[in-house]
Amino acid sequence: MGSITPHQRKHKVTVVGSGNWGCAIAKIVAENAASYPDLFEEKVEMWVFEENVEIGKDSPHYNPSNTGPQKLTDVINTYHENVKYLQGVQLPPNLHANPSLEESVKDSTILIFNLPHQFILRTCESIKGKILPYARGISCIKGVDVDENGAHLFSETIGRVLGIYCGALSGANIANEVAREKWSETTIAYAPPSPGLQSPLDAGVSFAFPDKLGRALPSEYPPVDHTVLKTLFHRPYFHVRVVNDVAGVSISGALKNIVAIAAGWVEGMGWGDNAKAAVMRVGLLEMSRFGDKFFGATIDQRTFTEESAGVADLITSCSGGRNFRCAKYSIERNQSIEEVEKTELNGQSLQGTLTAVEVNNFLKKQGMEEDFPLFTAVYRIMTGSMKVADIPAYIER
Amino acid sequence: MGSITPHQRKHKVTVVGSGNWGCAIAKIVAENAASYPDLFEEKVEMWVFEENVEIGKDSPHYNPSNTGPQKLTDVINTYHENVKYLQGVQLPPNLHANPSLEESVKDSTILIFNLPHQFILRTCESIKGKILPYARGISCIKGVDVDENGAHLFSETIGRVLGIYCGALSGANIANEVAREKWSETTIAYAPPSPGLQSPLDAGVSFAFPDKLGRALPSEYPPVDHTVLKTLFHRPYFHVRVVNDVAGVSISGALKNIVAIAAGWVEGMGWGDNAKAAVMRVGLLEMSRFGDKFFGATIDQRTFTEESAGVADLITSCSGGRNFRCAKYSIERNQSIEEVEKTELNGQSLQGTLTAVEVNNFLKKQGMEEDFPLFTAVYRIMTGSMKVADIPAYIER
Repeated sequence: MGSITPHQRKHKVTVVGSGNWGCAIAKIVAENAASYPDLFEEKVEMWVFEENVEIGKDSPHYNPSNTGPQKLTDVINTYHENVKYLQGVQLPPNLHANPSLEESVKDSTILIFNLPHQFILRTCESIKGKILPYARGISCIKGVDVDENGAHLFSETIGRVLGIYCGALSGANIANEVAREKWSETTIAYAPPSPGLQSPLDAGVSFAFPDKLGRALPSEYPPVDHTVLKTLFHRPYFHVRVVNDVAGVSISGALKNIVAIAAGWVEGMGWGDNAKAAVMRVGLLEMSRFGDKFFGATIDQRTFTEESAGVADLITSCSGGRNFRCAKYSIERNQSIEEVEKTELNGQSLQGTLTAVEVNNFLKKQGMEEDFPLFTAVYRIMTGSMKVADIPAYIER
Repeated sequence: MGSITPHQRKHKVTVVGSGNWGCAIAKIVAENAASYPDLFEEKVEMWVFEENVEIGKDSPHYNPSNTGPQKLTDVINTYHENVKYLQGVQLPPNLHANPSLEESVKDSTILIFNLPHQFILRTCESIKGKILPYARGISCIKGVDVDENGAHLFSETIGRVLGIYCGALSGANIANEVAREKWSETTIAYAPPSPGLQSPLDAGVSFAFPDKLGRALPSEYPPVDHTVLKTLFHRPYFHVRVVNDVAGVSISGALKNIVAIAAGWVEGMGWGDNAKAAVMRVGLLEMSRFGDKFFGATIDQRTFTEESAGVADLITSCSGGRNFRCAKYSIERNQSIEEVEKTELNGQSLQGTLTAVEVNNFLKKQGMEEDFPLFTAVYRIMTGSMKVADIPAYIER
C-alpha cells in the first residue's frame, strides 16, 4: 500500500461476534492486520460470548489429563481454533478472543459486527458511549429489517444506536468455505458522507446524514476509505470489491432468500434447470425493482447485476443454501416449510420465510403486491392461498 | 388477440430443421397455429433431412409386420413423433414433415431456422430466390460466428443470404425439457427497420439496414410484429418476452458457453458454490462488456441482466449444460477437454471451446485480451499456457 503516507496512529480492529462467519471474517482481518503493520495494530480483538466447551477425543487438542469443560475464549487463545463453531480451522495467533464486550471494543477505530441479527440491538446498546466516538463500523449481518413502514438496514441500526457511520459487507460467502480459504468474492459497501457536510449540532467535528451522525476521524489515523477497507478484508482467497451502495448490498442479502425459497420449490417439483433459471431471473428483477422503488435515490442498480452481493449471492443461495434446501425438502416430503425447518435446522430459523412475510406486509400496505409477483407468490404459497404449480402463470407478465 | 383486425391472408409458417430443438419449437408453433386461425394457416411445415429409421421394439409404434427401415418423414407424418431425435414426445397433427427443403419454404411468410449452425449457410444458399421476398425469419440457432474481424450474428447471415429480415430466439431452453412441456422462458429479439427507412436500391418496397435488405410485407397479411411473434411462440409452458436487441440475444447465447467451461472447471476442482458464483458473475460482466465494446450502438445492457437469453441462460448452462459437464469431467478425469468431448458427445462438438478460440483471436487482434480476463483465461487454459488454479488471481481486478 505504497501510496498511503505513514500516520502517527494505527487502526485497532475488533470483530464483534465469533460464530462460524464471525471467526472466518476475524481470521481474514487478523491475517491482514499482521501483513500491514503501517495501517493496523497487529492484535485484533474478537468478542466471544463466553461458554464452556469440552474438547472431544477426535480433536488434536484433546488432553486426557484435562477433559473437563474449558472456557471457549481460553481454548481459542491457547489453540487458535474455535473448536465449537469452526472446527479444524487454524486462526491467526494475533487474533485475541475476549469475553468482555466492553473491553474488546475499547479504543477500536474499526468495529466489525458479525453476530445473529436478533442480538444486534442489545449488543449495540450495551456498548453505547463506550466506544470511540469516531469509530467506523462494518456490518457483516446479511439482510434488512422490514416492517410495514419500510426496510431498515442493520448497518443503519448499528450506526444510529452507536452514533457512528457503519457500512456493510455481503457476498456469495458460505462461511465454512471462506474459513477453509476456498476462493470467493465479496462486496463491501461504504460511503460515509463527505466531511464538507457538517452537522449543525456539532459543526467542525461531525457529519450530518439523513438519520445518523458520525464524528470525523482524527487526522493522526489513516483515513478509513475504500483502499484501507480493501487492505483490511482482501485476501488471495477472498476478493473484495468496495462500492458505495449500502442499501443495495443490504437488501440483496435479504431478498435473495425469498427467491431461494421459490427456486427450492421449483427444484423439488422436478421442473428442471430452465424453470429454476426462470424463477431466479424474475427474482433478480424483483430485487432490483424493490431497490428502485423504495431506495431509488441512493441505490445503484449495478449492485444487483454486477456485484458479488447481488447476482452471485443469489446464485449461491439458489444452489444449496438453507432456504433453498428447506423449500426443496418441503415439496419432496410433502411437509410445510416450517415442519422442515424444525427437523433440519436444529432450532435455528429460516431467514427467507421471515423476510417473505415482512416484505409482503410492507408491499400490501403500499398496495404493490402485484408489482412483485414472485415475492407475493412465495408468501401466498407459504400461507396456503396459492400452490407452487401456480407460479408460472402468476409471474407471467 | 382481439386487437388485431382481420386480414385477407394468413401467415404460413415453416420450421427449417427437425432435431430435438427443431421439433420442440415446431411443436410449439404448430400448437399456436392451430389455436389462432385468424393469424396463421393451420398446417405448419417442417423441413426434415430425410433418413431411414427403424422403429425399435420398445416403441409403441413398433409393428412386427413392418420392421424394415422407414423414411423419417413418413414416420413423423404417420405417428406424429420424431422417433429418432425426440422420442416419446407427441407432435401436433397439423405439423407436416417435408423432405423437400424447397417445397417446405415455398410461400411461407414466417421462416424459423433451427438447425446446427454449420448447415446454415448452405441451407440458405439452396433456397435463395425460392422464398417469398417479403418473408421474415427467426433464427433459433444459438451464438454468433466470431472471426478476427468481429462477430457476425447467424440471423444476419440468414438475412444477408436470403435478402430478408431475420430476428433471433434464445433463452434458458434445454430442448428436451421444453418438448416435455416443462415450464421455461425465452427471449425473441426482433426489430426490423421502420418502413420509413427506404432502400435507395428499391425505393418503396424494401428497407435499408446496415447490411441487410428486406421487403415490406404486403398489407393483406397481419404485420409480423412483437404481438404476432408472441402469439406464435408463447405457450403456458413456454413464456416469451419479445425485445429489440438481436445482437445482445445472439452474443449472450455464444459467450455464456465460455463462462460455462470456466464454471465446469471450478466445479471439477471442488472449489465450492462461492467460487462458481464468482466465475459466473465475472462472466456475466464480460458478456455485457463485450456487447458494449463491439455492439455499443445497438446493444441493450438489460438483455444480459434481465432476459432469459442473458442471465437465465447463463445459469442453466452453468448448471448442467454440455460445456459445463465436459469441463468438469476434464478436471475430474485429468483429461483435456477435447478428450472428454470425444468420449462424451458421440461425435458432436462443444460450442464453448470453439467460441473461446474465436473470441480470443478477435480480442488478440484488438489488443484487448486483458479487458476480458475470464475469456482469456479459458482460452489460455485450453491451450496449456495457464492453469485452472490461476483463474482467481488472473481475473482479480
